[in-house]
Amino acid sequence: MRRIIVDAMGGDHGPGVVVDGALQAAEEYGVEVTLVSQSDAVESELSRRKFNPSAVSVLTADGAVDMHDSPSRALKRKDSSMRVAFDRLKAGEGDGLVSAGNSGAMMAIGMFVLGRLPGVDRPAILTVTPSLSGGTVLLDGGANTDCKPRQLVQFAHMGAIYAEKILGHANPRVGVLSNGEEDGKGNELTREAVRELHATELNFMGHVEGRDITNGRVNVVVCDGFTGNVALKTMEGLGQFVSSALKGAFRSSLLSRLGYLLCRGAIRSAYDRLDYARYGGAPLIGLNGVAVVAHGGSSAEAIKNAVRVAGEAVSQDINGYIVSALDKPDG
Amino acid sequence: MRRIIVDAMGGDHGPGVVVDGALQAAEEYGVEVTLVSQSDAVESELSRRKFNPSAVSVLTADGAVDMHDSPSRALKRKDSSMRVAFDRLKAGEGDGLVSAGNSGAMMAIGMFVLGRLPGVDRPAILTVTPSLSGGTVLLDGGANTDCKPRQLVQFAHMGAIYAEKILGHANPRVGVLSNGEEDGKGNELTREAVRELHATELNFMGHVEGRDITNGRVNVVVCDGFTGNVALKTMEGLGQFVSSALKGAFRSSLLSRLGYLLCRGAIRSAYDRLDYARYGGAPLIGLNGVAVVAHGGSSAEAIKNAVRVAGEAVSQDINGYIVSALDKPDG
Repeated sequence: MRRIIVDAMGGDHGPGVVVDGALQAAEEYGVEVTLVSQSDAVESELSRRKFNPSAVSVLTADGAVDMHDSPSRALKRKDSSMRVAFDRLKAGEGDGLVSAGNSGAMMAIGMFVLGRLPGVDRPAILTVTPSLSGGTVLLDGGANTDCKPRQLVQFAHMGAIYAEKILGHANPRVGVLSNGEEDGKGNELTREAVRELHATELNFMGHVEGRDITNGRVNVVVCDGFTGNVALKTMEGLGQFVSSALKGAFRSSLLSRLGYLLCRGAIRSAYDRLDYARYGGAPLIGLNGVAVVAHGGSSAEAIKNAVRVAGEAVSQDINGYIVSALDKPDG
Repeated sequence: MRRIIVDAMGGDHGPGVVVDGALQAAEEYGVEVTLVSQSDAVESELSRRKFNPSAVSVLTADGAVDMHDSPSRALKRKDSSMRVAFDRLKAGEGDGLVSAGNSGAMMAIGMFVLGRLPGVDRPAILTVTPSLSGGTVLLDGGANTDCKPRQLVQFAHMGAIYAEKILGHANPRVGVLSNGEEDGKGNELTREAVRELHATELNFMGHVEGRDITNGRVNVVVCDGFTGNVALKTMEGLGQFVSSALKGAFRSSLLSRLGYLLCRGAIRSAYDRLDYARYGGAPLIGLNGVAVVAHGGSSAEAIKNAVRVAGEAVSQDINGYIVSALDKPDG
């Protein structure tokens, strides 16, 4: 049985939501969860819930990383719940880790405690976005503002392994995110990365555009963390805009209210395809260990899914495949 | 009466759609349109339509810029419809210009024929995106892959003037697109641009994130053309994804089909808020003249709106305000 350590102090909605999500994951996926609490916060939440005590344990820390802490400040707090979670993962007391905390702090602590996989210069935030062909892997989602071409090449290998082993895309199509596909498009970084990626054995499509993230043309999109973060947050903003525009439209007349009632289920299922919460969490891929960051605004369902994502990365041995791939001459 | 020169050979759908849009604009907005045709393509379209002959004239060119032509190749074709359109604008035979052609070619020809406004290093593609507060001006949408901080400062001034004079945002809020707002976020370009923009008289909000493009927090978003193009095309792709997911959902059962019929009008009005076609065209702002690029896949309505956008830029004297603003010490 896989053992996932969950930082219960991450997230904007307090430990109750994290505890709910972790307990649901324990029940639904048969994983063992270890909740890291600040003082008795988790115990007090657990006392109000029913759960299988053999699947749930609690560790106590003295503090928590704040969403506004800088990575360097977070690194100095050796007693935070996030730090304790990483320390225990490193000590072998879990197979993977989930936190809905500050992703910059998570990356800094993860790098310090776990280090990188051999062949990886810098870990990346790997996000699965919705797409017409069942999910696109995008990385880096924001860990590395500036990147070198060889880092994008490493991201491509890591993303392709994830797309194949977790999303089930055989021989996944990989592209470098750019401002166009024509000759002369791209910047210095992307043009050199494209040149290097053509020399790998990856199923590489060259430069791709923003619309290719969702249209299914590729399964893996690589970019620096600045560009990836802009793309992901632009999608998040547009999703909220559309949702708000549709809500307003449905409320605009009695007829449209009635129509909405009739197709509500269908609309919800369409929203579900869009909802990041279902994808549940972004692995910090390239760390020497499995760590998944859940969105700060995560619901219990998102936490549950982040635990699932961590468990899948463990059971599919994603890190083992990455080490093999980046050990090859073309890596 | 304003006179708009329309390159009838741009666009993916052939000259018929462009002619339709231009005739609609002439009728609806009372503008005079000059259509630039390759050989008799436009005459043959016009012969099948009714229109007011005193508002419509035709110029003939010997060729057309292809969507795949490089800017340098397009510049060499002195007889293309796009080149003729710019030459006639320069000669004072029109007040503004519209093309649904290749935007790189348009920028190159525009720079060569019209030149830049004083104080502008490089013109930018200015796009109006949907937002919860009635439209956000985003620039650069793709003309300049790499930018210097002072170019972003110029974009900010140009965008703020456009947001105020055309969209009606008094004292518009301006932000620099970045991967986060916290200290330490942003890249070398954006951090220096933020420093310089704080010293201007603009209503400047610092770094903003992708979601702020649509959530109404700012009215103007500035970025280099690489980042802007990725953001705009990511929005375009997600819009198509949502539309496809909803269509699938409405078709999923008899009940949801019925519901859709009842709220169809409301949904269409929500889509309209999203639809780029309504915004109609992106000015190449900073050129010494008014030139508007319409999306290559433009419908007649989009062409009509691009003509409106060109007419508004002329009648609001956007370029005059830009020259005044960039003449100030802080520009």
